[in-house]
Formats: sequence, structure tokens, C-alpha cells
Amino acid sequence: MSNWESNIRKVIPYTPGEQPDAKDMIKLNTNENPYPPSPKVTALLKSLDSDELRLYPDPKVQVLVDALAKRYEVKPSQVFVGVGSDDVLAMCYLTFFNSGKPILFPDITYSFYDVWANLYNIPFKDLPLDENLCIVKEDYYQDNGGVIFPNPNAPTGVETSLADIEDIVAHNPDVICIVDEAYIDFGCESAIPLIEKYDNLIVVQTFSKSRSMAGSRIGFAIGNERLIKYLNDVKYSFNSYTIDRVSMKLGAAAVEDEAYFQETNKKIIATRERTKERLEALGFEMPDSKSNFLFISHPKINAKKLLAALRERNIYVRYFDKPRIDNMLRVTIGTDEQMDCFLAFIKEYMEKENIC
Amino acid sequence: MSNWESNIRKVIPYTPGEQPDAKDMIKLNTNENPYPPSPKVTALLKSLDSDELRLYPDPKVQVLVDALAKRYEVKPSQVFVGVGSDDVLAMCYLTFFNSGKPILFPDITYSFYDVWANLYNIPFKDLPLDENLCIVKEDYYQDNGGVIFPNPNAPTGVETSLADIEDIVAHNPDVICIVDEAYIDFGCESAIPLIEKYDNLIVVQTFSKSRSMAGSRIGFAIGNERLIKYLNDVKYSFNSYTIDRVSMKLGAAAVEDEAYFQETNKKIIATRERTKERLEALGFEMPDSKSNFLFISHPKINAKKLLAALRERNIYVRYFDKPRIDNMLRVTIGTDEQMDCFLAFIKEYMEKENIC
Repeated sequence: MSNWESNIRKVIPYTPGEQPDAKDMIKLNTNENPYPPSPKVTALLKSLDSDELRLYPDPKVQVLVDALAKRYEVKPSQVFVGVGSDDVLAMCYLTFFNSGKPILFPDITYSFYDVWANLYNIPFKDLPLDENLCIVKEDYYQDNGGVIFPNPNAPTGVETSLADIEDIVAHNPDVICIVDEAYIDFGCESAIPLIEKYDNLIVVQTFSKSRSMAGSRIGFAIGNERLIKYLNDVKYSFNSYTIDRVSMKLGAAAVEDEAYFQETNKKIIATRERTKERLEALGFEMPDSKSNFLFISHPKINAKKLLAALRERNIYVRYFDKPRIDNMLRVTIGTDEQMDCFLAFIKEYMEKENIC
Repeated sequence: MSNWESNIRKVIPYTPGEQPDAKDMIKLNTNENPYPPSPKVTALLKSLDSDELRLYPDPKVQVLVDALAKRYEVKPSQVFVGVGSDDVLAMCYLTFFNSGKPILFPDITYSFYDVWANLYNIPFKDLPLDENLCIVKEDYYQDNGGVIFPNPNAPTGVETSLADIEDIVAHNPDVICIVDEAYIDFGCESAIPLIEKYDNLIVVQTFSKSRSMAGSRIGFAIGNERLIKYLNDVKYSFNSYTIDRVSMKLGAAAVEDEAYFQETNKKIIATRERTKERLEALGFEMPDSKSNFLFISHPKINAKKLLAALRERNIYVRYFDKPRIDNMLRVTIGTDEQMDCFLAFIKEYMEKENIC
């Protein structure tokens, strides 16, 4: 072994959600949107001039920042854009969590939170959700180096009320609180209005779910101007030009089509409620979801076995081999047709296995 | 001031090279390629289906990794891809420079090297170039935590011979040596063949210069499989999906068009030599450049004054307010027509100022 080996940062390898590319698959495993991006995005893509690719993109990402500022009724100086919300969140960790005290997040939550903490040597405590998979707000009143949680939570889909979020933020004036709203557009109330009242709050969203643009890698943060400036300072010192020319323009076009955005979100919510009802009729249990997925279990079904059976039929869902949730499956909401196929298979499986 | 202020990472703000958007400007300030990307890139862009943007990109970036592996005659497992070479280099710092000992780089070099060191709390020593702006290889034989330098160097354009590079790499078996070949395709010899012999060498290149795709944000590293695996582990733990679907495909199309790549590089080299000759005839001095820029000074001209005069005519070049190089201008090589305009203005300026 060479001596340089000892100076390598060794991380716990993270396995990203599978991206299968089979024909006729039903892909319900990474919470992508079943509907294409806005027709305005399609039209713009066709009209792009490849000549401009020779030039660096605007490091300020102004066209997209302006579109987001207008949509969310904040100043452009209150918007930070990154390469997906993973990039935005990692930049937040690097920028805001430097106290040496443990940061706090739920025990069942987005799987990157502890990964980034380990990557940047930030201590952390994961706080157990209660038996209904809800955040216990009082747990977050202890001394800490920062707070982060998704709303709705992932992979549970459970909402934390805006009143509870405000309590958590108000109890932590000396650290930055990040609300990760990756799934906010499927029925939850955003904490963005609270940023006027609390200077320690930052809200992060993504284009990967409700805006049907996981393939374009766009995430953003909204907060007060000072926090956004600090984030941009770190970003510029890391890589000044992150969002490429194509994504920047397509992202702005997506934000400008509010009607399409509302329409697809409405469709997904309707499909979710319909799927939930049918699954419950089959004996499945799940928390009330405010996201574009359902987190399901069945008292008589082994989740891992069902996962494998679904896979054999080219239906992909997500399983987490983690304490407390190791008999649950996370099922992304697809189109009605896709969910009908999924439900039909589940019925068939239960009949075959004599489960009723 | 809130208490959270004290936990914020404060970085020395970095000012990216200006991206002016004036009409009829001659943009010779950020080393972009004056020629558009390959016609194959243009054709592919027109044919892309926006529907696929709803899906995450392939986290392995396989289509692009495979194209690069084929082009550079290495295994796909020896190629790492990032969001521009800045992203690749920053990932290299985070992954490889953890010994606590100072890393080494030239005093006059790419301005991000010390920025990343500061960002990640990595100690560093900058080693003076000699009076001809050449790297003194013996300086790099001292105990250190890693080595990084560009070849050719920026903003000087000066080449370090492959023999000298091999000496530096061979003298540093216990640390990782990074050769940053952002400008390699304009007349230098790449160190990529050395990676078979030295397991501590990693070579980084970019699509922003010779491949006319600064706007797509693609950089890559080539090294032995172990180094590439470590880089990918860190990348996956940070953000699994960084290269978006569009850039990935366009990048692969660019790599596959070797003829166009050779042709544009040849044109730029010819324009560089022609421009150099004419500038020298006007009394300008400059090191021999193996890049797509010239680093010029004139014993009778104040660089800052000339910079301002050029700017008034909508001609943008780059100035660095740093010791030893504060009377020099870095001039990107544009088309012959652009360089003729630049030269015509220089002549006019010298006449007006009575410099001969």
C-alpha cells in the first residue's frame, strides 16, 4: 500500500437510488414526476442555439434567480441556486454548520443528512420520530449546532405543521434552521413566509419533483439576504459556474408556467389519494402523505419479498434497510395507469400468497 | 448581530472573470473558444426529447465516461466526471489532501488553488516561478501534502516539459500529484500516459476551452482506478447526480468528433502564433504560450491603463492585480478577425499615446 492511501478521505459509500433503463418498466423508486416538464420547457429546448455553449454561463444565474424571486415574492438577493437541492444542502452544511456542536435531524429522514455531516466532520444527533412517525418539536429545543429536517418528511411523507416549524425556528435563534421542502408542492404549506420574521431560517426546494426536471439538476434556497450572500460567497470560492446555460434557461421557463405546475401537482395529489384508498382497502397501512409517494406496509406482507416480486415484473419501488422502517416500501406516485398496474400486481400477489 | 453569525464559514470572496453581455463586444477575457461546439453537438441538441428531463440523470455518467475512456485509451473506471474542472479539482482537494502537511503549487498560477485550500483548511505553500515564469522542479522535492500545478501554467501559458513533470511525480510517491491540463490541447504534451507508471498521478482536463463547451460545465479526471474510485465515493456522498442529462449527452457527442476538435485547435494555435508575432513587432513581450491565450506586457505601456482603454472599445481582456504580474494582460485567442480588431486598436492606442 502506498503511503498516500493514509491521506485519502474515506467516506461511507452511498448507493444512489437505482436508475434502471428497462423498456416497459414502471419506475416508482426515486420520486420522479410522471409528467414531462412544461411545454414551455420543450419549446425553449428546441429553440436553443448551441453556439452559446462556447461561453461560460452567467455565474449569478440571474435569469433563473429572477424567475424564482418573482414566483416566491422575494428579492433576487434572497435566492440561491445550486446543482439540485443536494448541492444546495451540502453548501448549507459547509457554510452554516461550523460551531462544533451537534446538528439535529430526525432518525428517519433523508439519507444524505448524516452523510454530509460525516463528510464535513460535523457532529450530529438523530432524534427519534414518535410512534406516528411525527417530529417531536420539543426535542429540537436542546443546545445544538443547527437544525435540518424535510417538510413533508422523507421517506415518510408526514407533514410537520407550520406552527410546529415556527416553534422550532423560534427556539433556535443562534443557529441556522434548514427546512428541506423537496416535496412541499404536493399539499404542504411552505415555510417561506416565515423568513421575513426569522433571520435564522433557510428554505430549500428542488426542480426534481414538482417541476418534472430531475434531469436538469436545479435546486434553490430562499432566506434573508445575509444568509444568501454567505452561501454565494462559499459557492463562488468553490466553483463559480455551476448551473449550465441550458438548465438555467429551461428552469426559468418552467417557473414561468405556473398553470402547468399547478395542474400536474393536482393530478399527482388526486392519484395519490386514489392509490392510498385502494391500498388501504387491501389492508395496507401508511401515514398520511403530503408528498408524491406513499410509505406503505402490510401486517401480513414481507416488504423485501414484495420488493423482489415487483421487480421481477419490472415495477421498481424503494426499500430502506434501516431500523424501524425495514418492513416498509416507498412507492412514488406515477400516472393513474401506472398505479393501476401496480395495484393489479399487488392484488395478484396477495391472491397468490393467500393474503387477505 | 445574531449569535449564528459566529458559526458561518467566512471565505475570501472570489470574483469570477466578468461575463459581459454587450453587443459587438470582443470577449478575450475568460479563455473561451471563439468557435462553436462541434456540429454533432448542435444536431444532438436539436434532437433531444424534453420528456426525459423528468428523470434523474445516470449517476455514473456512463455515456460520457465511455466516450472519454475510448478517446484517451483508458478504462472507463479510470475516468471521473464533474461539473467543470473546478468541481473536479475541488473534489480532488477534498479527497486527496488530508495529510495536514502543506500542499505545493506555483506562486503565479490558477487563482482557485489557494481558495480551495482555504475553504477546506488545507495548509499550502506557493513556490515562486523563476524569472522566466517557469516552474522550478526541485522546489517540489520537499516534504508536502500534495502537489498541484497547471500544464501549461495559467495565466502565463508556459509549458513544463513532460520530463520535468515526471521528475516531480516520481519525487512525490507518498502524495497525490494533480496536473491541471485545462489548456493542454493547444500544443502541450499530456501527462496521461504517465498514469500507467505512477499511481499517485491524476490528470484533470475540461470541456471549457478546447471543446468549446464552457456553457455546459464539464470537467474530468483520469488516473488509476483506485484514485478514481475514491473520487467517486466522495462525489456520491456529496451529490450523486451532478451532470445533467443534456450536458452528459452533448459532451459525449463533442468527444466523438475528433476531426472538428483537431481542426479548431489548429486554427487557434495558428491565430496565436500570428498574434504573437504582430504583438512582438509592436514591442510587446510575452512568454512562449502553449495555451489559447497570450500573457503580454510592454515596457512602455501601463497594463491597467490599456485595460481600461480596451474596455471602452468593448474589448475585454483579463488583468490580475497581483505581485510580479501587475503590469501584464492575459489576452484570449479569438478568431483572426477578432485579433485583427484587437491589434488595430493596440496600434491606434500606441500612436495616440506616442509609444513606439
